[in-house]
Amino acid sequence: MKRIGVIGTGHTRFGVREDASIQELAFEAWREALADAGIEAGEIEAAWIAAVPGYQRQRSLAGVILEYLGLPPRPGWLTEAACASGSAAIHTAWQAMQAGTCEITAVVGCQKMTELETAQILALMGRAGDVQWESVFGVTFPGYYALFARRHMERYGTTREQLAAVAVKNHHYGALHPKAMFRKPVTAEKVLASAPVAEPLHVFDCCANADGAACLLLATEDRIRRLGREAVWLDGLGAATAPMSVLRREELDSLPSAAEAARIAYAQAGVGPADVDVAEVHDCFTIAEIIACEDLGFCERGAGGPLVADRRTWIGGDVAVNVDGGLKAKGHPVGATGVSMACEIVSQLRGRCGERQVPGARVGLTHNVGGIGQYCFVNLFRKD
Amino acid sequence: MKRIGVIGTGHTRFGVREDASIQELAFEAWREALADAGIEAGEIEAAWIAAVPGYQRQRSLAGVILEYLGLPPRPGWLTEAACASGSAAIHTAWQAMQAGTCEITAVVGCQKMTELETAQILALMGRAGDVQWESVFGVTFPGYYALFARRHMERYGTTREQLAAVAVKNHHYGALHPKAMFRKPVTAEKVLASAPVAEPLHVFDCCANADGAACLLLATEDRIRRLGREAVWLDGLGAATAPMSVLRREELDSLPSAAEAARIAYAQAGVGPADVDVAEVHDCFTIAEIIACEDLGFCERGAGGPLVADRRTWIGGDVAVNVDGGLKAKGHPVGATGVSMACEIVSQLRGRCGERQVPGARVGLTHNVGGIGQYCFVNLFRKD
Repeated sequence: MKRIGVIGTGHTRFGVREDASIQELAFEAWREALADAGIEAGEIEAAWIAAVPGYQRQRSLAGVILEYLGLPPRPGWLTEAACASGSAAIHTAWQAMQAGTCEITAVVGCQKMTELETAQILALMGRAGDVQWESVFGVTFPGYYALFARRHMERYGTTREQLAAVAVKNHHYGALHPKAMFRKPVTAEKVLASAPVAEPLHVFDCCANADGAACLLLATEDRIRRLGREAVWLDGLGAATAPMSVLRREELDSLPSAAEAARIAYAQAGVGPADVDVAEVHDCFTIAEIIACEDLGFCERGAGGPLVADRRTWIGGDVAVNVDGGLKAKGHPVGATGVSMACEIVSQLRGRCGERQVPGARVGLTHNVGGIGQYCFVNLFRKD
Repeated sequence: MKRIGVIGTGHTRFGVREDASIQELAFEAWREALADAGIEAGEIEAAWIAAVPGYQRQRSLAGVILEYLGLPPRPGWLTEAACASGSAAIHTAWQAMQAGTCEITAVVGCQKMTELETAQILALMGRAGDVQWESVFGVTFPGYYALFARRHMERYGTTREQLAAVAVKNHHYGALHPKAMFRKPVTAEKVLASAPVAEPLHVFDCCANADGAACLLLATEDRIRRLGREAVWLDGLGAATAPMSVLRREELDSLPSAAEAARIAYAQAGVGPADVDVAEVHDCFTIAEIIACEDLGFCERGAGGPLVADRRTWIGGDVAVNVDGGLKAKGHPVGATGVSMACEIVSQLRGRCGERQVPGARVGLTHNVGGIGQYCFVNLFRKD
C-alpha cells in the first residue's frame, strides 16, 4: 500500500455567497490549493468532485466543474454520499492513487445551497431519509436528530445544557475562523432560549445551510519526494454504512457506521482514540457531536455530554474537537463539508491555525456522516 | 497492479417496470449475480451504486439500495457521471480492489425513469448539458446529437440511410435478447418514415428511457483462484473528460473524451481496435454509434456510416457492435447502462449469448458516454 499525502489545501469563505456560482466557488478553492502546493493546474492528473445534486439547477455537476477548472481530458466524476460526499471523493482519489493510474490528484467539494428557500432545502434533505417509510410521513433532518437526542437523554441523562455547550464551543472557535459563516460567540443562555425546531433541538442546536467549496491536493509519497514538498499523511481511511431507515436500527443513540469506520481507520493508521490531538466531527446538530465523541472512543458511551460540558474538547483538553467552528458555526455546504474538515486538519498539523491552533498537534481525525448515518467516513491524518 | 476479474453478472428485464421500485430492480439484478457467481451476499466486502439522482423522489439512493441489499455495515457510495455512472462505479470498484481494502465487490447500476413524464425527463436531461450557456436556450439531448449528426453529414457525407442502418441492426439483435425493452425488428423504411425529433434524428434514431438494473461481481485474481472460479478479466480501463459545453469543443463530429479513454484502455490491456471481437458502444442516438466506431478506431474517421451500412458491425463482420440491441433496442436506464454493457460483454466472452453469440469472442470492449461526452469510459475485457 502506497503512502498518500496532502500537499495543498484551498477553502472559500462559507456562508451566503451570492457573489459566486458553484463553478466559481470550486475555482476559488482550487486556485488557492494550487498556490498552496506550488504546482500548476496541468500537473493534476485526475480529479473527483463532491457535490450533492438537486440544490442547483445544473445537473452533471462534475462535468461543468471539471470544465471550469480546465481539467479535460483528465478523468474525474462525481461521488455522492449525502453530507459525506466530500469524504467519498477523498476515498476515491486515495484508491485511484493506490491503483497506480495517477500520482497527483485533486478533490473538490462544493455546494451552492442558498439559491433555494429553506423550506425547499428541508424537503430535499428529508428525502435523504427513507422516502418510502419515513420522510413521506413528514420527518425532517432535525426530526431525526431530535429522536436521537431524546433517546440519548432518556438513556444517559444528557441535558439540553450539555447540548448547548457544543454550540457555545463551536461558535467560540468559529468566531476565530476567518472563513466561517458565523463569527460571533454565543452564550448558553442564548442557545437555550432560541426558538424550538424539533424538541429538544432549538435553532442554535442546528447547523446552517451554506454555500462554499474546499479543495485538497493529494499525491503519492514518491511524487511528494520528487517534488520536494512537505506533506500531511493520510494514513487511515475507514468507510462504513448503516441501514438508512431508523426502523432498522438497533439503537438510536449512536451511529453504527461511525463506530465501524473508526475501527477500520484506527487499525489502518495504527493509532487509537487517545492518540488523536485534533478532530473534526460531523456536528450537523449539537447532539451529533456528543454521539460522535462516543462513537470515536473519545469517551465512554453516554459520557459525551459531560465531556463537552467539562470543556475537555476545547483546546487544552483531552482532544480538540471542531476548533474551526464545525458545521455549526463554519456552515455546512453539504458537498464541501468532508473536504473542508480535511483542510482544517491539514492546517492544524501544519501549525497554521493562528488563534485556534492546537499546540503540537501530530494526529488529526475527520468524522463525516452522510444523511442520518447511512454512510460514515473516518480518516486519520499524521504529520511525521 | 492486480488483475481483477468478473465472476458474476445479473440483469433485469429493461423497459417500463411498473412492477418494481428502484430498490427492487437493484435486488433482482443482485440476486441473479450472486447465484451466477455461486457466492453468498455476506462475502461481498464493498459495493458501489450507480444511479443518476433526480429521476426518483428518493435521494441518498446508495443508502436506500445498500440497505435493501443487506450490505451495511460494508462500505459503499454512489458514483455519478450522467449516463456513464455505471462505468464510474466499475472504475471505483477496480481502484478499491487495487488498494487492497477489499477482494470481492459488487457494482449495481439501477434507474427508475418511467415514473416521470417524457417531457420532465427531457428537461432533466437537458440540464446535463451546460445550463448557464446552453440548455437555458432550450437545447435538449436530441438537439445536441442532431448537431453532431449535421456536422458529420456535412463533413463526411454521412446519410440518414446510414443512420437508419444502426437502428435496423440494433433492433434486429434486440429482438433476440430476452431482457431487451423492444423485441421487434424494424426496417430502414420504418426508421426513415418515423416522426422527426430533432432533424436529422427521427424517433427511431433515439434510444428510449427505461427502468432496469444490472449487477457485476468483481474479485481479485488471488481470490478468484481461491474460490476456484472462472473469470472474465477486466484488463484495461480508460476514463477521460471533455469540455461539457459544445461551445468549447474543437469539433462536433467526434467525442474527444472517447478517443482518449480508448487510447488509455488499449494501452493498459495491450490490445488494439483490430483485436476487439465484440463491443458495446453508447448508441443513445444512431449517430452516436457511428461516431463511437470512429473514436474507438474500428474504422477511419468519417467511415462509420459505410461501416454499419455494409454490415461490418454485424456478427460475422469486422467487429460485432451492440449485438444485445444497444441502448437503442435494449433500453437506456441511465445509471444501469454502463453495468449492463459489461454484463453483455462478460456473457459474450463466456459464450452464453445463444442466438446472438459472437463465435469465438475473446476480447470485448465497452464504451460508455456520460452526457454529451463530458465523460467517457472505455473498458477492455478478456477471456484467457
